[in-house]
Amino acid sequence: MKVAGVITEYNPFHYGHKYHLEKSLKLTEANYSICVMSGNFVQRGEPAITNKWSRTEMALNAGIDLILELPVTYALRSAEYFAYGAVQLLNKTGVVDQLVFGSEIGEINPLLTVGKILAEEPAELSNLIQTELKKGLSFPEARAKAVVNYITQTNINLTPTEIQEIIGNPNNILGLEYIKALSRSKSSIQPLTIQRRGADYYQQNIETEIVSATAIRNRILSEDMNYNLTTKIPTYTNRIIKEELNQGKAPISLQNFNLAVLSILRRTSKTELAEFEDVTAGLENRIKDAALKTGSLLELINLIKTKRFTQTRIQRILLQLLLNLKQKDLHKFDNAGGPQYLRVLGFNQQGRKLLSAISDKGSLPLINRIASHYQSSYPPQSLKEEMLAAEIRATDLYSLAYDNEEYRRGGQDYRKPIILEN
Amino acid sequence: MKVAGVITEYNPFHYGHKYHLEKSLKLTEANYSICVMSGNFVQRGEPAITNKWSRTEMALNAGIDLILELPVTYALRSAEYFAYGAVQLLNKTGVVDQLVFGSEIGEINPLLTVGKILAEEPAELSNLIQTELKKGLSFPEARAKAVVNYITQTNINLTPTEIQEIIGNPNNILGLEYIKALSRSKSSIQPLTIQRRGADYYQQNIETEIVSATAIRNRILSEDMNYNLTTKIPTYTNRIIKEELNQGKAPISLQNFNLAVLSILRRTSKTELAEFEDVTAGLENRIKDAALKTGSLLELINLIKTKRFTQTRIQRILLQLLLNLKQKDLHKFDNAGGPQYLRVLGFNQQGRKLLSAISDKGSLPLINRIASHYQSSYPPQSLKEEMLAAEIRATDLYSLAYDNEEYRRGGQDYRKPIILEN
Repeated sequence: MKVAGVITEYNPFHYGHKYHLEKSLKLTEANYSICVMSGNFVQRGEPAITNKWSRTEMALNAGIDLILELPVTYALRSAEYFAYGAVQLLNKTGVVDQLVFGSEIGEINPLLTVGKILAEEPAELSNLIQTELKKGLSFPEARAKAVVNYITQTNINLTPTEIQEIIGNPNNILGLEYIKALSRSKSSIQPLTIQRRGADYYQQNIETEIVSATAIRNRILSEDMNYNLTTKIPTYTNRIIKEELNQGKAPISLQNFNLAVLSILRRTSKTELAEFEDVTAGLENRIKDAALKTGSLLELINLIKTKRFTQTRIQRILLQLLLNLKQKDLHKFDNAGGPQYLRVLGFNQQGRKLLSAISDKGSLPLINRIASHYQSSYPPQSLKEEMLAAEIRATDLYSLAYDNEEYRRGGQDYRKPIILEN
Repeated sequence: MKVAGVITEYNPFHYGHKYHLEKSLKLTEANYSICVMSGNFVQRGEPAITNKWSRTEMALNAGIDLILELPVTYALRSAEYFAYGAVQLLNKTGVVDQLVFGSEIGEINPLLTVGKILAEEPAELSNLIQTELKKGLSFPEARAKAVVNYITQTNINLTPTEIQEIIGNPNNILGLEYIKALSRSKSSIQPLTIQRRGADYYQQNIETEIVSATAIRNRILSEDMNYNLTTKIPTYTNRIIKEELNQGKAPISLQNFNLAVLSILRRTSKTELAEFEDVTAGLENRIKDAALKTGSLLELINLIKTKRFTQTRIQRILLQLLLNLKQKDLHKFDNAGGPQYLRVLGFNQQGRKLLSAISDKGSLPLINRIASHYQSSYPPQSLKEEMLAAEIRATDLYSLAYDNEEYRRGGQDYRKPIILEN
């Protein structure tokens, strides 16, 4: 049994993901695959365009053997904690051999070199980062500059241009975080990378063969997907999205949470706002002031964001507020090793064998049915139950965005995993 | 200067109110009138159908000289606290001679008799109420039974039928609360009553000359007010409502808060729910369970309500939750004598003289401009500021319901009072 792990959002699954998956299995020579996938909320601080069960179906159709849920307490965090949560989840299955991720650079060695420095974070580097932060840069920018400065001062065999290229691209950065998390957790999992091809991450144009998830989402939100999208995404993705649309469960975007988020902001004091992660340096004042200036969520985000406080960071804060995920709770999980369970969203026949191997070798409870691990009517009794409660809450809030009132009922996390019988 | 006080909601102002007002001025022989009016949320646990400034204009047009706002911390409470807040507001103007209220019975003496008993609440009566409550009755029902039992056991000159009639009708009950509050505060204000005429409180039929506020609201919400309502409400009410409709600020109903309230409920734990007033006897479980069963606020209320937990009580709880008005804060105000300021919503030339008299004789700060008393950017520094902050928050949340995005901006409480120059 040789097992490849991938960390994904599949929001939604497209040809770029397909390419990455096929290439990964070839590169690793793995005969089993596990995917750690974000649930109903994703790292860029948005609700996923379709719910996690529909995206699990896409992943199963694409040939993934087992889909595990990245708890919302990690899915909706900065790149560092997102990577930490996902890597810990793979570590604790006890069966994953290799982690493959896409990157702009497409070579593992330079990433390993920089990743190792980030993992060790020497005091000198920390100081350099603090210096840059004080200039008003965002954390990723400050760290990028600091790393360039640090490496050029040392004997490491990378030119400033190379480092700049590594640390200035979103997939490289996420890759560095995976390497950092693997290194710090002394993981036995081997990191591998594949060069991303096709559309740029943020590309809006839908004409190239591999279209970006952003472009696909915009097309779905503009409601004319019927005309041009069918040849741009796999048939199953197209079919599954259409089913969700027909049932009144999609598309879901930040817009759906407009009044809910604004109402919560207007009833929340600055002191309470400051209890959320990444609300630092008086950001609570900025957020609270903006909440009185506009009745539109998109305008609100525009009013708050600065060079230092990026749009993604603001959106994550607003969604953490919506879900009532406070910093003290998040840190409690972080300090306890991250994910407290392995929650199965779906699997196929091969996945069944993986589950059996994980039962033997894994070091976390394996959850097929939530009701066996936590009853909604009781207050959480353990960290595991607290993390589950946060997940259930996230799904219950996501459900309220459905156009179809029937599906707005709560407790949808209590359903069983999806089983694809081949 | 002879001043009559009335306690109102004017939601919206109709011919029944007009009749009551004219009759009041005649009965009291007063040459000045002060009205204490609920702001954007009303005692039956609903948002007012149009905002407080539009209803202030109606009151000024009807001939009231001075309109003071009943703080939301009293407007959105049970009859007992609603009456307590309103009566204290009148007491603390230092200028009101008489309080006139409508009642089904239309005679003050029987109300005084029963009101005095309620004010004193002898231990025996308290015990009788507890006994009835334990049978699962709502508080008003339990108290009604207990009072009948108590009075028939004593030498008071009222038959059970008379007591039943007094205590079984909504306006009589509110009147009793006014009398109780006057008595307990050893007020110099003399209570007077006028028999209500015209439509019953809950009447839906719009054909009689005096139509109920409920019927008018339903007609406005059904959006066909243009056809039949013009002859049923005063011209100015009609004009003001139409202006609000044209501006996209009306009609406002519980429906507008559907997703906001459901979202807040789903992110709030049972423990936090239990911090709200009237969430007793495990009601938090009932509310939380219902919040997962439906995506509709009206269905939610239906799922929660019982004989004991009335619809009005449930609605008040949900709105207190929306506005984040917790029991401990409400009780802090109650224990500090109720309203902490006299907030002016509007006045005419006569009202100007009243304001000058209140400046001399009143015992609370008189607020014309909120910005002179509290800056939104600072945390509240006193009980007065805390109460103002709650009011501003209530308005900021009410504003989010406006159809017109322009008016959803916050801080609308900072506008000056309306002055009607005759």
